Amino acid sequence: MSKQIRIGIAGYGNLGRGVEAAIGKNPDMTLVGIFTRRAPADLTPLEAGTPVYAMDTLPEYREAIDVLILCGGSKDDLPEQGPQLAAMFNTVDSFDTHARIPEYFATVDEPARANGKTALISIGWDPGMFSINRLYGEALLPDGATYTFWGKGLSQGHSDAVRRVPGVKAGVQYTLPSPVAIDRVRSGARPELSTREKHTRECYVVLAEGADAAAVEQAIVTMPNYFADYDTTVHFISEEQLRRDHQRMPHGGFVIRSGNTSAAHTQVIEYSLQLESNPEFTASVLVAYARAAWRLNQQGQFGAKTAFDVAPGLLSIKSAEQLREELL
Amino acid sequence: MSKQIRIGIAGYGNLGRGVEAAIGKNPDMTLVGIFTRRAPADLTPLEAGTPVYAMDTLPEYREAIDVLILCGGSKDDLPEQGPQLAAMFNTVDSFDTHARIPEYFATVDEPARANGKTALISIGWDPGMFSINRLYGEALLPDGATYTFWGKGLSQGHSDAVRRVPGVKAGVQYTLPSPVAIDRVRSGARPELSTREKHTRECYVVLAEGADAAAVEQAIVTMPNYFADYDTTVHFISEEQLRRDHQRMPHGGFVIRSGNTSAAHTQVIEYSLQLESNPEFTASVLVAYARAAWRLNQQGQFGAKTAFDVAPGLLSIKSAEQLREELL
Repeated sequence: MSKQIRIGIAGYGNLGRGVEAAIGKNPDMTLVGIFTRRAPADLTPLEAGTPVYAMDTLPEYREAIDVLILCGGSKDDLPEQGPQLAAMFNTVDSFDTHARIPEYFATVDEPARANGKTALISIGWDPGMFSINRLYGEALLPDGATYTFWGKGLSQGHSDAVRRVPGVKAGVQYTLPSPVAIDRVRSGARPELSTREKHTRECYVVLAEGADAAAVEQAIVTMPNYFADYDTTVHFISEEQLRRDHQRMPHGGFVIRSGNTSAAHTQVIEYSLQLESNPEFTASVLVAYARAAWRLNQQGQFGAKTAFDVAPGLLSIKSAEQLREELL
Repeated sequence: MSKQIRIGIAGYGNLGRGVEAAIGKNPDMTLVGIFTRRAPADLTPLEAGTPVYAMDTLPEYREAIDVLILCGGSKDDLPEQGPQLAAMFNTVDSFDTHARIPEYFATVDEPARANGKTALISIGWDPGMFSINRLYGEALLPDGATYTFWGKGLSQGHSDAVRRVPGVKAGVQYTLPSPVAIDRVRSGARPELSTREKHTRECYVVLAEGADAAAVEQAIVTMPNYFADYDTTVHFISEEQLRRDHQRMPHGGFVIRSGNTSAAHTQVIEYSLQLESNPEFTASVLVAYARAAWRLNQQGQFGAKTAFDVAPGLLSIKSAEQLREELL
């Protein structure tokens, strides 16, 4: 085995906790510490022995950390932290605001390149593993169509939207892929599917005292951008039911490419994830790519990169010889 | 779009025909010609205009061909052609004798490296896409187990074994994955599965005149290595039925990784292929990797490589910017 890769965690919410757990499953990695904007003493890591430091001490750890995993959010944290920290560290992040990725790439690329650092951005499962599979699908079956389905999964953005509706005390939203649509896609028929045909949405809502259930339901199902284009079901439940049945964060989905290699022959490629914990899986992907970030940096490949730029072999703890012998 | 990549095809069976078809679906590629050991005039390409040349004239085309796709068999053709042709051309092949890959890698690596050529070996779906997915699965869920299921598919090796049984005039063999076993794996239970539990085998046999059906069936189902460890069903059919119903070459399968990111959470990753034509899909993969072989060679990455060494982005006709914008 090569030398231990020394990892730092910047930010400690669900994702940061997942990264701490994942490092424990990768014997070639050592966790240097968790860096937080909270008071370090207020934070309880999974492992009692994990050091916790103040975020603003990070510059002192430049020599002690090989790869820093950024576990902040895409809306407020990463646009600021990504470029700043990529000037000091090799980084991996899960920036997932799809529309702003080109812009984010540019702001991280410049400082990373100038300082001889490698920054892997938008790593996770979507963007990330799903993106790779969209790419493989297109490249292997150029005459074809790609479909992405999400769920069954808890959607953070849609849950937030539900909670902003007046009269809603608490609630969660699940995205469900349509089994009928998936079967049509798997048949190789390349159907044109409307938004409504691909997914349905289910909301579990706790009403505020005295709120009008019918009005809340109407406000949710007609909400533009979030629900108006879908068949949405609203279930009213008690606070206790919400606590008991809806605390987990499952997710997953399907990337399906169907295409023709000749007029006579249809081929179907499918990649799917069935995740009991979305943040823990995302964290596990980040940690595997941290290994790749370190190796790319050692090869002199500086600047911002995405999952598209990382050869699969760079993710594995095994040597190239071992991989050819055992997995090819 | 970058310059046209000039492709040559060495060997023209089912795989070579598939490569010819696939090149037609990749607008950045031009087919220089098919090279055959048969008399060129005896060969009928898919496209009337495709030039056909004698295999031994290949050295004259060193400057005219950017990547040569080797479409010979793994048993007799590639062990000889691979090293020889990798000294003159960038190559892609589908060498699939799993146990001999390390040895084959070494014999191709040396001449390719010595002559500044890039040789992608063992490309296709297994080895190839399935191998990559075994690797991704292990790297993303280190605490887990990987399962590969094949089928439903026509197995060439097992069909040959059936046809060697005395009393068999003609026949084919299909490998079928067990739906029960797949469901157990998908549950995340990490079952230990015996060979018999994972797959069943079905043979469709045309008896020779006067052959004893019971004796033929017994000889097939008890054949060591090929059938003894499986539940095998033998169906006797007419020559006409064989011609009518068993001329296609479907295949496919599943690579499933299940693992835990924590004691509480199981995650399941699944990659599957459902192929109406095994050789056409394999050919389509070879052609996408020909694009990568050319790009790796332009980057100065010489020697033998496998699918593990190829970043996904190198397979796509699209630029890195376009990929980030459209597929990430």
